[in-house]
Amino acid sequence: MKVSIERAQLLKAMSRAQGVVERKNTIPILANVLVEAEGSTVSLRATDLDIEVIERLPAMVEQAGATTVAAHLLFEIVRKLPEGAQLQLISDTASGRLDVIAGRSRFSLATLPREDFPVMASSEYQVSYAAPVPALRRIFDKSQFAVSTEETRYYLNGVYLHVAEGAEGKVLRAVATDGHRLARIDMPLPDGAEGAPGVIVPRKTVGELRKLLENDDAELTISVSETKIRFSVDALVLTSKVIDGAFPDYSRVIPTANNRKMEVDAKEFAKAVDRVATVSQERSRAVKLALDHDRLALSVNSPEAGSAADELTVAYDDEALEIGFNARYLLEIAGQIDRENAVFMFADAGAPTLVREGEDLSAVYVVMPMRV
Amino acid sequence: MKVSIERAQLLKAMSRAQGVVERKNTIPILANVLVEAEGSTVSLRATDLDIEVIERLPAMVEQAGATTVAAHLLFEIVRKLPEGAQLQLISDTASGRLDVIAGRSRFSLATLPREDFPVMASSEYQVSYAAPVPALRRIFDKSQFAVSTEETRYYLNGVYLHVAEGAEGKVLRAVATDGHRLARIDMPLPDGAEGAPGVIVPRKTVGELRKLLENDDAELTISVSETKIRFSVDALVLTSKVIDGAFPDYSRVIPTANNRKMEVDAKEFAKAVDRVATVSQERSRAVKLALDHDRLALSVNSPEAGSAADELTVAYDDEALEIGFNARYLLEIAGQIDRENAVFMFADAGAPTLVREGEDLSAVYVVMPMRV
Repeated sequence: MKVSIERAQLLKAMSRAQGVVERKNTIPILANVLVEAEGSTVSLRATDLDIEVIERLPAMVEQAGATTVAAHLLFEIVRKLPEGAQLQLISDTASGRLDVIAGRSRFSLATLPREDFPVMASSEYQVSYAAPVPALRRIFDKSQFAVSTEETRYYLNGVYLHVAEGAEGKVLRAVATDGHRLARIDMPLPDGAEGAPGVIVPRKTVGELRKLLENDDAELTISVSETKIRFSVDALVLTSKVIDGAFPDYSRVIPTANNRKMEVDAKEFAKAVDRVATVSQERSRAVKLALDHDRLALSVNSPEAGSAADELTVAYDDEALEIGFNARYLLEIAGQIDRENAVFMFADAGAPTLVREGEDLSAVYVVMPMRV
Repeated sequence: MKVSIERAQLLKAMSRAQGVVERKNTIPILANVLVEAEGSTVSLRATDLDIEVIERLPAMVEQAGATTVAAHLLFEIVRKLPEGAQLQLISDTASGRLDVIAGRSRFSLATLPREDFPVMASSEYQVSYAAPVPALRRIFDKSQFAVSTEETRYYLNGVYLHVAEGAEGKVLRAVATDGHRLARIDMPLPDGAEGAPGVIVPRKTVGELRKLLENDDAELTISVSETKIRFSVDALVLTSKVIDGAFPDYSRVIPTANNRKMEVDAKEFAKAVDRVATVSQERSRAVKLALDHDRLALSVNSPEAGSAADELTVAYDDEALEIGFNARYLLEIAGQIDRENAVFMFADAGAPTLVREGEDLSAVYVVMPMRV
């Protein structure tokens, strides 16, 4: 292999590739990136066996070929080379080395044979559709925080992406929950997505996908099967296994009859929760909310550190209510709210509370109360 | 105690106080800050038994008094209160609480009795002098990196501040070394500093002192005894025990007869070292420098990852030389050099190498070679 490639392009692609590669690997070749040169492109492929990312870059290919080399190392080298540099990648099978040359800098890197590199089995995708970046970014950004990290409930370790019936017809919906809080975010159903099977997109995949969602003018092509999901944009393809499990019936968790409504400035609310939570212990950060007419009193009691109290003016005209929540859950939900007002719909101190952004039903959060 | 104080002022002072307070304490009161109100000032005092910082702030004192409260907690609370807020601090001995009130926010914090707060014994200082901030900042900034972290060589765990004979008369000098590299930085001797005893200023003290060295127009007053050093600026006093040990005779380590001179662009040199070191293992990051006329070849060989080579044009007209160094040491020294050119004075591959900034003798570095 002998190719010439622009530093900036290789750097961007390597930055994405090394995101997929795990820092610690028991299988040595999983630390590597597969570099293939053919025609007028170089393609880079990285995998952790669950996720695979392939990116094609324009390059001057003098001699086709392929090899694998440590992904983090190649990324660091490219990063440290001067801006604007033109890089040469040269490998010959005899020496088992990949040479990286830029100006007077010259690296000779250990390789592993391309034959040993695990390539993800190709899949038949049932459905394929295009979706605009801003809407996709919104549904993943607003749901991701609620994904569970408990490995025993592996079927909650991702975002459930599926077609559902929204308030105004069919939608593409992202749902995540850890049993304590839930996020349900909708976007208009893209053309051709109707028959897509519901899949649980793993947390790591959502993180890597997020890096592809920066260009507001782009569209992603999403292909879905029962076992895999594939995201393509420009010359980049991210393929991921989906979590093999059934996502619970979340609709039963979302309260529909809560009718005690509080409206509050989302930013002021988040600041007040953050302030009073300062005195609480890391673990059980219970904040008590006490509502009485248009007054919300927040308080935290910590046997060791002391107590904190704060007050906000809100819109509330139901009967007085006291209810407790984990401060972190309230903060995370308040942090998702783009509109000025957060709307809380309470039932009573023991029942799940619904939070939404103003009157918008396309983003709905549920949070379980805590005894305080 | 009942006082009213500006948030911004309290925040700045608490940020300094909590720097001194250790995160983990076996003695509970060491986690606290002593707040004393009297006359028209509030003073804040924090200590770890080796360092003590006291800061006086203007305040409206309605009722004098004193108490101690968790430093990190008070800092966090003040930080989270809105900008521009006016805070009230109210304590009464009966409840054992300190109330912090700002607008509708109200905190009631656990306290410990002021009597239990350890106050550092006052000292007779032999010498006291004033020194300008920029020169002080320079000598500590440029020497700090060489301080040893090995606890067994406790007498190297600080910067040795003393009066010495410089190239052009007496100077105030900072020296630090860990046995592998050494920094010796001079500033003009301040008036009245002549009889100051040499003291080893502990690493943590240097870090806290650094926060007082931001205002270029200020002067610090330094008071020194055999056992303590005190830095005062405006209404702030930082007192520290000095390390009880003898700093080794560093002058014997500084080569005087090295006469093979290389001049190199300091930034380009640092970048090249950083690049070639990418392939080396964390531990033994040996970089080989090979000099031949005006050409410097840098190389690293790693049995596992591969090899790296780079080249720089330098000024060197002595005989060819090969010498190895720990990459990190070279990078740290190159990072100190403000001038364009670093000057390396070599003897041979086994002897300490001297590095300086151009022809300036007020900042000199020594680095031990490694076998490569």
